[in-house]
Amino acid sequence: METQLSTTPIRIFDTTLRDGEQSPGVSLTVDDKIEIARQLSLLGVDTIEAGFPSSSEGEKKVIKSIVKAKLEPEICGLSRANKGDVDAAIDCNVDAVHVFIPTSPVQMKYAVNMTPEQVISAAADSVAYVKKHGLTCEFSPMDASRSELPFLKEVCKAAQDAGMDRLNVPDTVGIMTPKTMATLIEDLKTVVTVPVSVHCHDDFGMAVANSLAAVEAGATQVHCTVNGLGERAGNASLEEVVVALHMLCNCTTGVNLKLLYSTSRMVSALSGIAVQANKAIVGENAFAHESGIHTRGVTEKPLTFEPIAPELVGRTRKLVAGKLAGTRGIKAELEEIGIHPTDEQLKEIVQRVKELGDKGKMVTDADLLALTSAVLGEVIGEEKIVDLCDLAVMTGVKVLPTASVRLVLDGKEYVAAETGVGPVDAVLKSIQSLTNNLEKIRLKEYRLEAITGGSNAVAEVVIKVEDDKGNVVSARAAREDIVMASVEAMINGINKCLIKNRKQGTTK
Amino acid sequence: METQLSTTPIRIFDTTLRDGEQSPGVSLTVDDKIEIARQLSLLGVDTIEAGFPSSSEGEKKVIKSIVKAKLEPEICGLSRANKGDVDAAIDCNVDAVHVFIPTSPVQMKYAVNMTPEQVISAAADSVAYVKKHGLTCEFSPMDASRSELPFLKEVCKAAQDAGMDRLNVPDTVGIMTPKTMATLIEDLKTVVTVPVSVHCHDDFGMAVANSLAAVEAGATQVHCTVNGLGERAGNASLEEVVVALHMLCNCTTGVNLKLLYSTSRMVSALSGIAVQANKAIVGENAFAHESGIHTRGVTEKPLTFEPIAPELVGRTRKLVAGKLAGTRGIKAELEEIGIHPTDEQLKEIVQRVKELGDKGKMVTDADLLALTSAVLGEVIGEEKIVDLCDLAVMTGVKVLPTASVRLVLDGKEYVAAETGVGPVDAVLKSIQSLTNNLEKIRLKEYRLEAITGGSNAVAEVVIKVEDDKGNVVSARAAREDIVMASVEAMINGINKCLIKNRKQGTTK
Repeated sequence: METQLSTTPIRIFDTTLRDGEQSPGVSLTVDDKIEIARQLSLLGVDTIEAGFPSSSEGEKKVIKSIVKAKLEPEICGLSRANKGDVDAAIDCNVDAVHVFIPTSPVQMKYAVNMTPEQVISAAADSVAYVKKHGLTCEFSPMDASRSELPFLKEVCKAAQDAGMDRLNVPDTVGIMTPKTMATLIEDLKTVVTVPVSVHCHDDFGMAVANSLAAVEAGATQVHCTVNGLGERAGNASLEEVVVALHMLCNCTTGVNLKLLYSTSRMVSALSGIAVQANKAIVGENAFAHESGIHTRGVTEKPLTFEPIAPELVGRTRKLVAGKLAGTRGIKAELEEIGIHPTDEQLKEIVQRVKELGDKGKMVTDADLLALTSAVLGEVIGEEKIVDLCDLAVMTGVKVLPTASVRLVLDGKEYVAAETGVGPVDAVLKSIQSLTNNLEKIRLKEYRLEAITGGSNAVAEVVIKVEDDKGNVVSARAAREDIVMASVEAMINGINKCLIKNRKQGTTK
Repeated sequence: METQLSTTPIRIFDTTLRDGEQSPGVSLTVDDKIEIARQLSLLGVDTIEAGFPSSSEGEKKVIKSIVKAKLEPEICGLSRANKGDVDAAIDCNVDAVHVFIPTSPVQMKYAVNMTPEQVISAAADSVAYVKKHGLTCEFSPMDASRSELPFLKEVCKAAQDAGMDRLNVPDTVGIMTPKTMATLIEDLKTVVTVPVSVHCHDDFGMAVANSLAAVEAGATQVHCTVNGLGERAGNASLEEVVVALHMLCNCTTGVNLKLLYSTSRMVSALSGIAVQANKAIVGENAFAHESGIHTRGVTEKPLTFEPIAPELVGRTRKLVAGKLAGTRGIKAELEEIGIHPTDEQLKEIVQRVKELGDKGKMVTDADLLALTSAVLGEVIGEEKIVDLCDLAVMTGVKVLPTASVRLVLDGKEYVAAETGVGPVDAVLKSIQSLTNNLEKIRLKEYRLEAITGGSNAVAEVVIKVEDDKGNVVSARAAREDIVMASVEAMINGINKCLIKNRKQGTTK
């Protein structure tokens, strides 16, 4: 299971702000990019590729601001192999310039229309020009993996003779396998003496494995992006590469693993590119368990069905009730909120959970409480401390989105009205204006989950509310009407939070 | 780049309906599962693992229905190594039973509390019991990758002596690398003569590469799931495994690659698990290009920046305007709708696109048209054939979501009102009721894209409208108000569709 490798730390070259921002549809503001750069610095990457200076004036401005922030990592700018591009990078005061030029037949002909001879001299000239200015120079023969090996070696030698500090080997269209990648790195190391880096794309889902194979073959730096953002299917995921290097390859990096999850969340929020639930390390389900065999295993001993402890990467384990859930998982979930059913009752609850799941319904925390209440013959969670009586929401053209609510809280009625940026915002603000005043319960997080299909598809809303005792409670609701789903989740969450809060009040 | 492998087709064992459904949060109805099973049969997988019969009565019902559909693939049911579970599978009339039992120290002790001797005899007895009933038996030593090799071999031999037809090797918690996986398969092949299969999990992002490594080492069957669904980070993605086998390993499978995308869309819709934009093969961006160097390359020759033709997997190429977009890409996009700017004008348009992008704004098709209009001094796309005058939407408790609109179409005013399942549905129905009547333009697709952050975060809506000439036009709008974002996207789309439609009318 473990391969012994060099104990030299592997450099992490982060290109979230460059290749990552080239993801179709991603556009980051200056502030976004600086915020991400600061986080990458905290995370502990070795290089931040801050952008492509010659692409626009705005881009240059961003890179300059990142340089001015005086962060720990080396700040690098991308540059084509021409004087103008290198000058743009130098103008930004970067520490390092990443010079690239295509070396594959198809890209030399169709992407830049240059002869192999022209490519070699442009590469050498640009590297020399960077070095003349005293900056670190990383050189990439673009599309290396589809280049003819003898020519590729020639280009690399020319760049090395011109003074390159690091050779980066890009698998530009992601066609390598671990075996072919290892061979390529080994071949290039016969002619190159400077450190070798690798830049993998995920077109066939193998970017991470190819990066690891390159390291096993002697590469000492890996290009990655947070959440695997990047052109097309993206680059190697930083979080997957780093955790795999640490856990499976006996390597070290400068990365603080505990910050991986928060970094992923930040980049997802700022880039607008959601992370799928089943993404390794940072996906919502990466440390979640539903099926009976698995939940039983992890409650007994986490190692049974978890490769690493979730805390290691800044996360926590999640047990989910569902139709495949077992007795053990559901028992653990109920005990967490102080409910201790008998074995007989538990069996019945599990049975009802399965029945609900068989109908295709996702079993939420609130569903589980409702089923449990019915089985135990007691009102749990159903005891609505707060209940919604009336709600009206309107929006339109030249209509300020407005909502009014009438709530019953501990038997008393309260009314509030608020405006918002949209109908959901207006209604949540009006509910919150009451609960925050009366019970110090605030909305902490609002998330709309995958909606697919038509305009009448089911919207699923997950909210988190918190009180001033530090209780955080999540609730979920799924409806065809996004406004009503939001309201239902909010009211459910507030009720659960109040129940928890008051139980603490009586037991302490 | 290509590794020569056996020309025997590799069997694809699909477990979307079993391990995929074990994804936390996924619950499929009987109808969903049958629909997916039919699609998998069309797709050409060799085995469909239809479920885990003993887990619930509902599960058994689903499996029976799938068996009754008489599909092409082998239908398989999962079973623990005990008589009751096997009986439940047999009762479903499946073709094959997939018997599993843990063989790693941690799982034997904590997941099932059995001694190694008990595990061996339970495995052998269950396999023999399946064979006694004349069914195909696939056997899995669960957590094989964390098992002690001598014991693992012993279990496999016992199962083989008892009559197993296939040995499946599960990397249950996804800790293998391609190298360690290849070694494991080679080791097991020294004691096993039946076909060997592999079942990889993606906890470190290497499920696909590990599956390929197993095939290179002699495995002839791969377990996969559509979109890589499954426990935690999921299983090896069917689409990635199959395309990589075909394209990079010189292997064949029975899968019709052209159906991969539609299958992915169906499973995403029914499971409610969205596919991230940067997912290989089936992600929205897998064949999208934005940066100038890339769009220029692919418009000249697709192979420059695409590993395979998108059509091969049932998709099309997408060029996206954005701040990193080059002249060539934007020119191609404009020419597609019949706009031919001069070089001077084009330069100016590109400049403005970059400025917009620098502000962090995603450049939509409508944005591009607006910028182009401004530069060309002509009204393109801005010539609103249809325009919204009034809109009012309301919803609430005991309020039927209702919308009314007043539109101007070709200078005439029209009014409509509709109810819907929610405010978005109501308003889109009322707009459509007019445009469908008057111009035969219908809403074809509605998609709400990633919303992150609070209740006032920006919602992005992408819609597709189509007319009766077969024109399909997409439009996008981002607003804090989800209702208004939906309306804006719809009106933009209708306008663009009408412009296209009428241009065709005048030129034909």
